[in-house]
Amino acid sequence: MNWKITEKGWSKELISTLGNRFLIGNGYMGVRGTLEEYKKEQMPAINLAGLYDRVGDGWREPLNAPNGLFAQLKIDDTWYLVPEMENKEHEISLDYRHGIFSRRTVWSTKRGIVTVIGERFADFNHPHLLCMSYSIEADFHADIALLTGIDGDVWDINGPHYDKILFQNVGNYLSAEAVTHECGDTVLVMESCYYDFAGEEKLKEKEKQSFRQISFVTEPNKTYTFEKEIVIYTSKDSVAYKEKAEKELKKAVKTGYDALKREHEKTWEEKWCTKEIEIEGDDEAMEALNYSMYQLECIAPRHEKSMSIPARGLSGQTYKGAVFWDTEMFMLDFFLFTEPEVAKTLMKYRIDTLEGARKKAASYGFDGAFYAWESQEGGYDACSDYNVTDVFTGRPMRTYFKDKQIHISAAVVYGIMRYVEMTGDDTILAEGGAQTVLECARFYESLLVKKVCSEQYELHDVIGPDEYHERVNNNGYTNRMAKFTFESALQVLDYVDRKKLPLPDMNGSEAWQTDRLRMKYQDAIARLYLPKPDTDGVIPQFDGYRSLEDVSVAEVRSRLLHEKEYWGGAYGVASHTQVIKQADVVTWLTLFPKDYDLDVKLKNWNYYEPRTEHGSSLSACMYALLGCKCNMQEKAYPLFLKSAKADLSDGGKEWAGLIYIGGTHPAAAGGAYMTAVEGFGGLTIENQSLRIEPKLPKHWKKLRFHIWFRGELYEVTLTHETTKLEKL
Amino acid sequence: MNWKITEKGWSKELISTLGNRFLIGNGYMGVRGTLEEYKKEQMPAINLAGLYDRVGDGWREPLNAPNGLFAQLKIDDTWYLVPEMENKEHEISLDYRHGIFSRRTVWSTKRGIVTVIGERFADFNHPHLLCMSYSIEADFHADIALLTGIDGDVWDINGPHYDKILFQNVGNYLSAEAVTHECGDTVLVMESCYYDFAGEEKLKEKEKQSFRQISFVTEPNKTYTFEKEIVIYTSKDSVAYKEKAEKELKKAVKTGYDALKREHEKTWEEKWCTKEIEIEGDDEAMEALNYSMYQLECIAPRHEKSMSIPARGLSGQTYKGAVFWDTEMFMLDFFLFTEPEVAKTLMKYRIDTLEGARKKAASYGFDGAFYAWESQEGGYDACSDYNVTDVFTGRPMRTYFKDKQIHISAAVVYGIMRYVEMTGDDTILAEGGAQTVLECARFYESLLVKKVCSEQYELHDVIGPDEYHERVNNNGYTNRMAKFTFESALQVLDYVDRKKLPLPDMNGSEAWQTDRLRMKYQDAIARLYLPKPDTDGVIPQFDGYRSLEDVSVAEVRSRLLHEKEYWGGAYGVASHTQVIKQADVVTWLTLFPKDYDLDVKLKNWNYYEPRTEHGSSLSACMYALLGCKCNMQEKAYPLFLKSAKADLSDGGKEWAGLIYIGGTHPAAAGGAYMTAVEGFGGLTIENQSLRIEPKLPKHWKKLRFHIWFRGELYEVTLTHETTKLEKL
Repeated sequence: MNWKITEKGWSKELISTLGNRFLIGNGYMGVRGTLEEYKKEQMPAINLAGLYDRVGDGWREPLNAPNGLFAQLKIDDTWYLVPEMENKEHEISLDYRHGIFSRRTVWSTKRGIVTVIGERFADFNHPHLLCMSYSIEADFHADIALLTGIDGDVWDINGPHYDKILFQNVGNYLSAEAVTHECGDTVLVMESCYYDFAGEEKLKEKEKQSFRQISFVTEPNKTYTFEKEIVIYTSKDSVAYKEKAEKELKKAVKTGYDALKREHEKTWEEKWCTKEIEIEGDDEAMEALNYSMYQLECIAPRHEKSMSIPARGLSGQTYKGAVFWDTEMFMLDFFLFTEPEVAKTLMKYRIDTLEGARKKAASYGFDGAFYAWESQEGGYDACSDYNVTDVFTGRPMRTYFKDKQIHISAAVVYGIMRYVEMTGDDTILAEGGAQTVLECARFYESLLVKKVCSEQYELHDVIGPDEYHERVNNNGYTNRMAKFTFESALQVLDYVDRKKLPLPDMNGSEAWQTDRLRMKYQDAIARLYLPKPDTDGVIPQFDGYRSLEDVSVAEVRSRLLHEKEYWGGAYGVASHTQVIKQADVVTWLTLFPKDYDLDVKLKNWNYYEPRTEHGSSLSACMYALLGCKCNMQEKAYPLFLKSAKADLSDGGKEWAGLIYIGGTHPAAAGGAYMTAVEGFGGLTIENQSLRIEPKLPKHWKKLRFHIWFRGELYEVTLTHETTKLEKL
Repeated sequence: MNWKITEKGWSKELISTLGNRFLIGNGYMGVRGTLEEYKKEQMPAINLAGLYDRVGDGWREPLNAPNGLFAQLKIDDTWYLVPEMENKEHEISLDYRHGIFSRRTVWSTKRGIVTVIGERFADFNHPHLLCMSYSIEADFHADIALLTGIDGDVWDINGPHYDKILFQNVGNYLSAEAVTHECGDTVLVMESCYYDFAGEEKLKEKEKQSFRQISFVTEPNKTYTFEKEIVIYTSKDSVAYKEKAEKELKKAVKTGYDALKREHEKTWEEKWCTKEIEIEGDDEAMEALNYSMYQLECIAPRHEKSMSIPARGLSGQTYKGAVFWDTEMFMLDFFLFTEPEVAKTLMKYRIDTLEGARKKAASYGFDGAFYAWESQEGGYDACSDYNVTDVFTGRPMRTYFKDKQIHISAAVVYGIMRYVEMTGDDTILAEGGAQTVLECARFYESLLVKKVCSEQYELHDVIGPDEYHERVNNNGYTNRMAKFTFESALQVLDYVDRKKLPLPDMNGSEAWQTDRLRMKYQDAIARLYLPKPDTDGVIPQFDGYRSLEDVSVAEVRSRLLHEKEYWGGAYGVASHTQVIKQADVVTWLTLFPKDYDLDVKLKNWNYYEPRTEHGSSLSACMYALLGCKCNMQEKAYPLFLKSAKADLSDGGKEWAGLIYIGGTHPAAAGGAYMTAVEGFGGLTIENQSLRIEPKLPKHWKKLRFHIWFRGELYEVTLTHETTKLEKL
């Protein structure tokens, strides 16, 4: 297969998309696939994981570090910058087997041809290190001036986040210390630029920018290469972040670009040994799938023990760099199956932000833990009450994602329980997991309502996964997930009793009374209402759903008056119809396949799929997964490919109302992985053991992958004739 | 005092307003204060009580009868019509002591001066009869042609309601039989035109119009008078409606205009004997108040035993001619105190539409009786799910008046119980009232929810009187009214037991088990949550109200982007602020003054009044009433005057979004009456007896009125020194 993607030519319209598609990263940082000469208008970003800042009333969002990759080229006193100067040839490439981005541009100048080759990687062995090489070759005696250094005037959505940047020269290094607005955190970028030929170097400093200008004259057809190592540390990383940064940079410079690159590639190769998925008979799918996994690899937090992944990965500030249910419901399985330590890191993040979730619950008058819909550090909910802008009035629209999308807490429980189930490692329960699950159960308990004249428990005024229908009663998915939470709480109570865990009741000084809780949760499980299939087998998504107008997605789309108008909210084109944004009942049936038999699954798939806009990148994979369970591999396949190519295709949604939502789609990537392994691969866990019932698409001759399960590595090889599961 | 209002001059802008202000009526019909020559563009209407029609997907609305008043004047071959031909003098007047509308117009023609005087009344002794006189005088030999007859091309909001009109000549009479669209009901208009001079008469019939053209030449300074009697019947009035109409018309013609007018005036005089309110020291207030009562008199249904009053009276088709809570909460007291038989008619309408209310409840999955928010015949709810048009998109906006404004059923209960309390006549309970009250209690019972972890009962997802805040939990007014319903149910159960009433359980074949119900409702009363005053004494209007943005009405108004945009709904300028449309908590405290002491009342008045837009004509009087209870007569007075002048002042709201809502405001009129008698007059009922604690405004020297109470007529005379209550 081909492990490289390439985009030839340049157009302004593709800047945002390509920045995402050609992303590199190492979990500490994500580096957009932009050109060295780009300034903030072209959306370059070295996006940092887990550090946020808020300016005034703007949204809190993650930081883009001062851009140490910055380089602009002057030839014969004229700037040669791709956005401004027409080129002869231009292409960018991503070697996604090794996480290496490169660009190659050829300009025809008055005096001859100049070729520039840039290359970079976010070092997989050194999370703080970003390496770049930049080569220039001319076929004449060109007067070259390369302006390179640190551009602190970074792209921000709700910035600027750095009031001031302190530039210094530390020996040969340039250093930028940028201080954030809200908490006064420092982002330190230290840059070295090495070249082995004579050049005249001048330092140029402007507000927010510190550059060297290196001037020299080329010999014809000789290559002149600059090697840059850039180290990034924040004051949150370590008290001694400056010393560490300098030390690390020195070491990197000493090692040199080529050696660093070799080691980096080696580490990637080791990863792929067990991560690569082989599909015989379908290179397109194989490439898209491995590319999807590449995207997840780039943003996996390996440098921390308690951290999660934002919904747009590390591709920028969209969605405030916040963690959504995407992590638990769409990305977690990939890590559980291929690198359980990362999965633990993700779940530890939720456990460690329990206090934030408790505070959020209390702020709404609920008990227990109501996790943030958009979680930043400490579990702070970055979600605003106003998330969408009305295109007709320019006013912010009150949305209810933050306060009504209560299924988020159940997603956290789902993640913890799935971690325990798939790794067999229940120590996470003792390390706060049990408390987390019980606090989530307590949350749902405090939300349960019953009609006085009925014995049934209900959940009212919620938003399910389908966000186009706000404030509904008894959303099937939500109720089922609440039930799952109560079921999990019972398991956890058994564990607590068995282990005699000292578990403080966080609402008071008493310990949990496990017997009392057990009775409560058994009662809740018995009485919690779940919508039942109608006579035609279709489960209504919420109370009254099926009496809404039943029209096609195309009809609803045709009612739009403005291309960017929001489909949901109180008056959106979809709101009072049966058209939904994304898989909802279908997600329920995918996660809990035993709840209903094949016939009901099939009827719901057939009913809901044509009514789904798939306006979220989380949608297609759920349909693909359930499609496989319904033996509809051929219907599942295009939906799988849509997920796998979420970041490879053009035309993704980049706007919600007037809000920019572009970026990578790691949940879709995770969904593609799940579809391959659990859908087509047919892998399920039952009674703590693996079960495989492959559902390969006809044209797939072989599907081969490795998985970790309960501490053991397995190789799985599937063909239409044979099913092989081999412990390694 | 002056019992006449006059408007001099003419302007297009005032057509709608004056049509309302100069309305005449007799309960069977309301006749707008428009000119004889008006065609449908100028909104003339003979609006009929209680007969509705629907065309296609338009709103069902009441009918305007074919216009038998129509008359257009040609002088010397030129049309002289006020909207088109400039006049020398023009005025309209209303003698509201006798319900007589008149117009006087003087035109200067090329050859001389022509004066037209028109006069009309909706006969108070004969509900089907409308009488008109039309006089012409010229100071030269004018060639006159009067075109008069029946104009069936009537003004409609959602029409046309008559597909066809059959015109006939019945002897000297013109007759029009207009058949409605939906049910094929017939509206029959029969017209006689009498004049005692020679004229050449030609019949002219067009589609939907049947006229006579009467031509003659005037003697200078001689008056030529046409007397028209118009009889209106519908096929719903009687099977023999044609015969009856003809007979009645014949009799009227025989009696003649002058004699009919004398009898009509006499009847009005008799009414005023006990209805007139005397205010010494404030002619403005006295005139406005008696005018308000005039408006209520015009629309009181005396020709039926079971009928109610639409929210815009009989002034047109606004609000679909439907009956709202306005009747019980704002108009009923006037009738209870001045003409209890009409009050009974109003409440019988609710009792007789119980079946419609039960159907509505069932359609939402509730038990009992959920009364129509906009009630038409049989209790059919004419309220649409889409009541407001978005001014920015032109799309209908989903509103929740119909499904969430549950306080309507309690208003019906309130009306029935108040009828019993003030008349002492409990036969209405045996005549269906008991059943109605119990079905309403059953309705609220089916709506009660409790959080599983709480013992308290709550009402969720409602709209209170303040419609700008949709879908709130625990609206104080609504919860209090539900509690009142349960309390009333207990009283009714006692009555049922005492009288051994055979009362079928409408949900099944069993009789009501009164003991079981008593326990249920006692439990509901004990546990139903009512919002409590915060530490500053302010009762939050609903859960979370006080955490909404606290800004002034002026600030909210300044945020409007379009003058007609709706303040409420999901994204209205008021929706996420504490600015409210109308009295809400204040209505609660007005209706249930014993719930809280003076201090709490005062604090709530002071808190809510500045936050109230008074965007409904129902608002001011509630503030005025509570203001009196708080001894703030001076603050109450302007609000009282605002209510009393709702139809006398210009500048009322005529638009909600893009929907026309102009018309008369009988609820404001009723509110003004209540403020005079119960506010300033300080009249209350306690333990079945009258109590008076007058709160006269300083400048009122004397307030004198009559009231009926428990079958006895009283005269009440109040000064700042003396309080006199005299049984007559």
